[in-house]
Amino acid sequence: MSPNRWAAAFLKRENAKVKRQSSALAELYGGGPKLKEECGIFGIIGHPQAAAKIALGLHALQHRGQEAAGIITWDGAQFYSERHLGLVSDNFTETATLDGLKGHAGIGHTRYSTTGDTVVRNIQPLYADIDRGGLGIAHNGNLTNARTLRKELIRKGSIFQTTTDSEVFMQLAALSRGITMVDKVIDSLASIEGAYALCILTQHSMIGVRDPQGIRPLVLGRVDGAPVLASETCAFDVIGAEFEREINPGEVVICHEDGTVETRQAFPAPKHPRPCIFELIYFARPNSFVDGQSVYEMRKKLGRKLAKEAPIEADIVSPIPDSGVPAAIGFAQKSGIPYEMALIRSHYSGRTFIQPDQAIREAGVARKHSANLGVVKGKRVVLVDDSLVRGTTSRKITRMLREAGAKEVHFRIACPPIVFPDFYGIDTPSREELMAASHSVDEMCAKIGADSLAFLSLDGLYKAFGKGARDDEAPVFTDHCFTGDYPTPLTDQAQAHNKAVIEQLSLLAESS
Amino acid sequence: MSPNRWAAAFLKRENAKVKRQSSALAELYGGGPKLKEECGIFGIIGHPQAAAKIALGLHALQHRGQEAAGIITWDGAQFYSERHLGLVSDNFTETATLDGLKGHAGIGHTRYSTTGDTVVRNIQPLYADIDRGGLGIAHNGNLTNARTLRKELIRKGSIFQTTTDSEVFMQLAALSRGITMVDKVIDSLASIEGAYALCILTQHSMIGVRDPQGIRPLVLGRVDGAPVLASETCAFDVIGAEFEREINPGEVVICHEDGTVETRQAFPAPKHPRPCIFELIYFARPNSFVDGQSVYEMRKKLGRKLAKEAPIEADIVSPIPDSGVPAAIGFAQKSGIPYEMALIRSHYSGRTFIQPDQAIREAGVARKHSANLGVVKGKRVVLVDDSLVRGTTSRKITRMLREAGAKEVHFRIACPPIVFPDFYGIDTPSREELMAASHSVDEMCAKIGADSLAFLSLDGLYKAFGKGARDDEAPVFTDHCFTGDYPTPLTDQAQAHNKAVIEQLSLLAESS
Amino acid sequence: MSPNRWAAAFLKRENAKVKRQSSALAELYGGGPKLKEECGIFGIIGHPQAAAKIALGLHALQHRGQEAAGIITWDGAQFYSERHLGLVSDNFTETATLDGLKGHAGIGHTRYSTTGDTVVRNIQPLYADIDRGGLGIAHNGNLTNARTLRKELIRKGSIFQTTTDSEVFMQLAALSRGITMVDKVIDSLASIEGAYALCILTQHSMIGVRDPQGIRPLVLGRVDGAPVLASETCAFDVIGAEFEREINPGEVVICHEDGTVETRQAFPAPKHPRPCIFELIYFARPNSFVDGQSVYEMRKKLGRKLAKEAPIEADIVSPIPDSGVPAAIGFAQKSGIPYEMALIRSHYSGRTFIQPDQAIREAGVARKHSANLGVVKGKRVVLVDDSLVRGTTSRKITRMLREAGAKEVHFRIACPPIVFPDFYGIDTPSREELMAASHSVDEMCAKIGADSLAFLSLDGLYKAFGKGARDDEAPVFTDHCFTGDYPTPLTDQAQAHNKAVIEQLSLLAESS
Amino acid sequence: MSPNRWAAAFLKRENAKVKRQSSALAELYGGGPKLKEECGIFGIIGHPQAAAKIALGLHALQHRGQEAAGIITWDGAQFYSERHLGLVSDNFTETATLDGLKGHAGIGHTRYSTTGDTVVRNIQPLYADIDRGGLGIAHNGNLTNARTLRKELIRKGSIFQTTTDSEVFMQLAALSRGITMVDKVIDSLASIEGAYALCILTQHSMIGVRDPQGIRPLVLGRVDGAPVLASETCAFDVIGAEFEREINPGEVVICHEDGTVETRQAFPAPKHPRPCIFELIYFARPNSFVDGQSVYEMRKKLGRKLAKEAPIEADIVSPIPDSGVPAAIGFAQKSGIPYEMALIRSHYSGRTFIQPDQAIREAGVARKHSANLGVVKGKRVVLVDDSLVRGTTSRKITRMLREAGAKEVHFRIACPPIVFPDFYGIDTPSREELMAASHSVDEMCAKIGADSLAFLSLDGLYKAFGKGARDDEAPVFTDHCFTGDYPTPLTDQAQAHNKAVIEQLSLLAESS
Repeated sequence: MSPNRWAAAFLKRENAKVKRQSSALAELYGGGPKLKEECGIFGIIGHPQAAAKIALGLHALQHRGQEAAGIITWDGAQFYSERHLGLVSDNFTETATLDGLKGHAGIGHTRYSTTGDTVVRNIQPLYADIDRGGLGIAHNGNLTNARTLRKELIRKGSIFQTTTDSEVFMQLAALSRGITMVDKVIDSLASIEGAYALCILTQHSMIGVRDPQGIRPLVLGRVDGAPVLASETCAFDVIGAEFEREINPGEVVICHEDGTVETRQAFPAPKHPRPCIFELIYFARPNSFVDGQSVYEMRKKLGRKLAKEAPIEADIVSPIPDSGVPAAIGFAQKSGIPYEMALIRSHYSGRTFIQPDQAIREAGVARKHSANLGVVKGKRVVLVDDSLVRGTTSRKITRMLREAGAKEVHFRIACPPIVFPDFYGIDTPSREELMAASHSVDEMCAKIGADSLAFLSLDGLYKAFGKGARDDEAPVFTDHCFTGDYPTPLTDQAQAHNKAVIEQLSLLAESS
Repeated sequence: MSPNRWAAAFLKRENAKVKRQSSALAELYGGGPKLKEECGIFGIIGHPQAAAKIALGLHALQHRGQEAAGIITWDGAQFYSERHLGLVSDNFTETATLDGLKGHAGIGHTRYSTTGDTVVRNIQPLYADIDRGGLGIAHNGNLTNARTLRKELIRKGSIFQTTTDSEVFMQLAALSRGITMVDKVIDSLASIEGAYALCILTQHSMIGVRDPQGIRPLVLGRVDGAPVLASETCAFDVIGAEFEREINPGEVVICHEDGTVETRQAFPAPKHPRPCIFELIYFARPNSFVDGQSVYEMRKKLGRKLAKEAPIEADIVSPIPDSGVPAAIGFAQKSGIPYEMALIRSHYSGRTFIQPDQAIREAGVARKHSANLGVVKGKRVVLVDDSLVRGTTSRKITRMLREAGAKEVHFRIACPPIVFPDFYGIDTPSREELMAASHSVDEMCAKIGADSLAFLSLDGLYKAFGKGARDDEAPVFTDHCFTGDYPTPLTDQAQAHNKAVIEQLSLLAESS
Repeated sequence: MSPNRWAAAFLKRENAKVKRQSSALAELYGGGPKLKEECGIFGIIGHPQAAAKIALGLHALQHRGQEAAGIITWDGAQFYSERHLGLVSDNFTETATLDGLKGHAGIGHTRYSTTGDTVVRNIQPLYADIDRGGLGIAHNGNLTNARTLRKELIRKGSIFQTTTDSEVFMQLAALSRGITMVDKVIDSLASIEGAYALCILTQHSMIGVRDPQGIRPLVLGRVDGAPVLASETCAFDVIGAEFEREINPGEVVICHEDGTVETRQAFPAPKHPRPCIFELIYFARPNSFVDGQSVYEMRKKLGRKLAKEAPIEADIVSPIPDSGVPAAIGFAQKSGIPYEMALIRSHYSGRTFIQPDQAIREAGVARKHSANLGVVKGKRVVLVDDSLVRGTTSRKITRMLREAGAKEVHFRIACPPIVFPDFYGIDTPSREELMAASHSVDEMCAKIGADSLAFLSLDGLYKAFGKGARDDEAPVFTDHCFTGDYPTPLTDQAQAHNKAVIEQLSLLAESS
Repeated sequence: MSPNRWAAAFLKRENAKVKRQSSALAELYGGGPKLKEECGIFGIIGHPQAAAKIALGLHALQHRGQEAAGIITWDGAQFYSERHLGLVSDNFTETATLDGLKGHAGIGHTRYSTTGDTVVRNIQPLYADIDRGGLGIAHNGNLTNARTLRKELIRKGSIFQTTTDSEVFMQLAALSRGITMVDKVIDSLASIEGAYALCILTQHSMIGVRDPQGIRPLVLGRVDGAPVLASETCAFDVIGAEFEREINPGEVVICHEDGTVETRQAFPAPKHPRPCIFELIYFARPNSFVDGQSVYEMRKKLGRKLAKEAPIEADIVSPIPDSGVPAAIGFAQKSGIPYEMALIRSHYSGRTFIQPDQAIREAGVARKHSANLGVVKGKRVVLVDDSLVRGTTSRKITRMLREAGAKEVHFRIACPPIVFPDFYGIDTPSREELMAASHSVDEMCAKIGADSLAFLSLDGLYKAFGKGARDDEAPVFTDHCFTGDYPTPLTDQAQAHNKAVIEQLSLLAESS
């Protein structure tokens, strides 16, 4: 058992009693459950109500992570911190809490993780006291050589406090011989591979960082003269901030209390930045703007393009609520088929019911979505969604609609089939569970039980976004989920693969 | 201070430290905060998975009350009970909990209350041990002479366990000289005025009761041969039950473990039943059926009728999500104006932020709904909602849309102005806070800041529901919120009013 | 299943998930676990710091009940209440809590119960709103016809809120036609049998009541002019109050806010009051005074008498700490054998260890008491305790001392053998578990493994207390635990016995 | 603000909201509140019930620390950990908890800290994953250069997880180039000054370490063949283990799963070991053995010596319970004055009452101890205690006894006056609060209000322990609290002092 396996195993148990859910394949691909999260980050400096602004900003970014949230502030003399499991609005709305987070500068983080492994020590922002003072880090994204770096650092004497990949930034900064904090932060980036947007708080400034290819998003705004950083523009609206610009790939912005913003380029600006296409398709809130365009309108365009690529005769078009709403509206408008709600979504889904038997389990599919009997009976229904991952929900919904009397059920997916896992901060399941990785479209359609199934084409996707067909030499998005074209080395995955191969060889040798 | 005021005051404080929110007027009208709730009820008998079915059924009725939920079961030898603050899915999903609720019969309740006064002892189903055995009661609705009855009962020696109006059923049944439990229950109804649907559990049967005018809803279904009672049909879908019929006004159904259902009429069947029109407009889930019609389709019809009654030139039609969705779809279809989402709803609104200052408070309106900048900029927007109560949210939304660049904002409300408070279980605010009670439509429009505002007419409402214009002599709905035509005496209110008048006279006398 | 068995069963389960521990015999004797508690009560009226005084007073009475505590106060307009599981010092020390208990008058209760059945609704003081206003009751003692009365009251329409026997006072007072609260209280006493000391709070006065034979104790004191009631004088010391007198058997004292104290005799003063002898032997704190004598000194006298009645040659005398300390000091002084600590008591015994196997279980006996190796090795040890109930601890201690090298172990018990259960509020186990009920002294000695065992004689006990030998016609103590001479009828027990006999006959009939 | 001040300040706030209590002087003397604890440690290897044995062992050591407890075990493949605030018996008695702590080897820790700063991350055993595998450390004692080392380590890139001084062992071991874990542990000791006993768990062995002078205690035992380490022998009794020997000063014992025990000397065995004399006087449980002698008997000898050195005519001798019991028995036996309990101790002291006013506060002194009126009235009382620290309790007790009627109150303290603070793990207050540091014995007597006060002499103390008079050149105990003769350098204190001096000079310079 290698050292960081020990650590992981140990920390996993710590008073948390979580259920293991990682499959063997997830282990093989190095995708330890803890290393897979999409998150939201936010920061502000030079504002008298820093903590309140951060809390509202994180609330607007809540869709990027609902498991836990944290805020760190600095008042010129001391750091203050609150980190809690649960929603921002459950933990950061009390006046007492916000008043305790003193100071004019601060950063916040809202966290998502696919397993139960969110122990308090893993809640961000991380904090450590290093040579030049306190350092707080909020990280959105995922590193592809974190395990490798972690091993090396432990060998040299570093002790890790968390099981997050984000801590390598901290440990590398602590070991840096850089003179200023900014030097140390930039120093730490040199050996890191992967996707990251960072909000960093020191005693002197708030620092924003975006990875060399701009995979994860980070935007700069301003409210009452104070610089603000956020994962998405929707966080600016909620606090009344003006959007200024996106942080460039490889850029480091240093924001000061007086409102000035310095910029340094930690890596040369890439010729072809490759922002993650999934932000547009799936993650960003509809009312955010990415690259100058409304996310809602872009998704409607996907629906329109889909209606053109895969038309179908039907009585009604309905979204899978709420994810498919904009694309369904686009599809309905383009196709002229009436837009209706074939499914009613419950706002109280909460925890999963542990159903006592099969009969109830099947009924249980109706928990989150209910078929709208009045509207689907005797109808040919087109269901539009933003993406299709495992296919299990689609199968249940199809059956539910048929039981409610739908005559035909047609699925239309507003992106191409997802065949490759993500390693940059989006929680895609292992290839085994990705329906499109092992099934043709026809097979998928049969499995779901639909009358027809169609995906938007890759070129259709690029074109809907106004980019022309995909240039395979220089694609303008990070789109490996559809193409397998990963924009960075996958060092941890390669090592895990080697190890798995060696183990299999050993087993073979032993058995022979 | 009168005895039941003492009790109320006392119990209110009990370890709960709640904030008083009742205005003087609420007191005057007798609308003590505890006496105002909309709730969901559910029961089943003769099914091996009674508790699990009840939990799922209550989950489907969660929209009728989110504060607390409870289940009582009977296994032939003993009663079992669980009552908890919070959502059904937070408290009734564990196998251990459901396994603890043994038996083939049970009832459940999900509770809403407008104030913080939900102490555990008020969570339903209520239970008491009376002369012929255990008696569990789940009540949806509100009584209009509960205070008066309570006073009388205390004078005679009854000790109340709760501060709910529902307990008078229990105390009256305990004092009844009826021989069987059914006799006792029917006995208790004689002196009660108001609106009620009841699910009752005894050691012998499950009993369903609906008030003499059928104000509150109650439906009978069957799953695997076992009779089921629920507030709405949507609860049947989730457990795979078949709808059989609505319970008649004044009817008492006695359901037995062998699946047989007896019926008795506690009151003569009314010539003109008057179900509450607000169930159709507002409360019922869109996928429920009332009186044989789809609620979703009925609301779409309201939208269509509204488009006809109050047409307007505009670029987009948008609902206030999610309440206005069906009516907005109907409006868009009838008017031909494109349906869009001008507002994006957050799924994480949770607790209210306690905002530190005005600047943030104003920004705070964006918490639950965000303007969809990409779609409203430069547009003439029609906003459709199911009802308008206080008008405060409408004002905020109007401003939000204007700040996002909307050229015009037109409000269309799919029901008439609400001018009278409810006393039958719907939490309408006091008249003071009901915007329509003190403002003309033009004044409301000015206050909201909209370019136009229109309500559906009362006759339009009746007609959209296929009833012809309202017959003032024999209206087919309980619609006092629009008309002031209350279907029962308001004994408590009258007494409170008398008392208030006497007090005012005394004050006058004193001051003169 | 009879009605109140249903109620008990039902309430027992309510969210509390307790383990049943009642043996069949306990059921037979009617000693339902809930009906067996020793408690402490306290009250004050006319003092600006009523709540703080009550909290301190209850703290001083904590030895009488550690499970839960409650306080009710009255400020002239409203009642305030706090009831919590746990120690007084864990729940009633915060300024906020005490400040919330407003008013110049109040009563408190500290509760002990042998099983897990302390649900919040059973925590005293009980409160109800009855015809003439609010009524709070704190009860120490146990009734012997509570079950019988409960059944009758339910038959007449009363609904019980708790499973405590104390609630019958409340229900009887609610039904009384008495004009004043004092009348109602006195009315309620007429049909009650058993042992009780009561502190009652109404809107007009604090009322103290002691049962007709004076079985349970109640003392009256005064601080800063304000009347105080308490179970023991030690509660007066802690608040700086002066002891005035004991309440007489059958007396009702009515204390007013102005400091005046009225007295009424609810029952004629008995010729031979019979206070419970166990208060002196076991329950009262050593620094309390009973009947004008120091409890500590009386217990020392028991030790001296014991040394005279059952002398033994030995090297050291040691108490079982802390219960045996005064008697051991008396024994050592009388016998001239040095007083030492053969056992060291842990102050952190807390919850019971659930030991994984026998080896550890046996070691586990050392948890609460440890043998003091340095002092017992090679010594002949006399162990003195105040009483011997089950004998299990004695057996473990004997073995522990022998393993630590004690040459001889002699047990001396400062009271006679306990052969009959108590029904007046002391938690004695069922006869089955009472070692002396089924074993001779020699058998007990053998079972414990001691070298000798001796009990104080009954006459020795009376004489040590300065009363001369016991007068069997008119004993001056309630001493049924030694004699079986119960001072009141045992109605519930008789009925339970009859029922058990009938059931056995039925079984015989069936089987024949 | 220096880096580790930042860290301390930061971590202090973390969700814990503790009240600061450190005085300026405490800061000056480097006695940061977190760095002052007395603790108990325990370990076992090669036993099938490791976790259960550790839990019982820690329970027996509970008197050494009640704030928190933790256990780490190793099952050959993985480490398991549970760390909780509160008592051992509150957190480690459930079968589920113990079963979750799998494995045949483990260590435990029970923690005391004088302030509220016990955040979960500071609960021991500490754990980290370092180069050669997992490392768990339980530490009793206090280091005198921890702050200095911490600063240096941070400068080099180490990130601290806790605010305990114990973490420097961990960080030094992580940086060590030693090949084996044992090498790394021994390596880490080289730069450390102060007092420590360690129980360490690795994947290969359990390691016990005692500081070079043997200040803190550590004993080796055996149960069922498995080696056991503990702070005191009383922990062996509770699990049925046999005492083998004390670990030598500077010794490192390596215990293996097969029961073998290796030994290495990390430091040359000292000519004059100096175990802490306070273990004998105050800390160890009376039934423990130290250096082959019964602690109880040694304390009785102190009482006897005290009776000889400071005789007094009186009626009774009483301990301050429970700390003074053995010395009081010794005093009584030697003096011939009867032993009595002048004070009754409450077993339910719990949290401190926050008393609303002075009157109640004064009464409040009676909470923990109550005067035993029956025994002190009119008597001349000798009160014996093991030590006198602040004198506040003594003053209150004196007054309490006088109010109860004591004719004379004489204090006899079974050790010399404490004039110097401890820096090795005992929580002595700052010099300001040490009564003897600023008052003569007469002044103390006057302040306490006693009729006489006497302390045992230093030579009397040594002689009572059978050591002859103190040899100032080579004292056989660590006794700096009486003498100021600290057995190690006080690096942190010196630096803090220098810093304070520099600051004062700066202030002078500024003000001039």
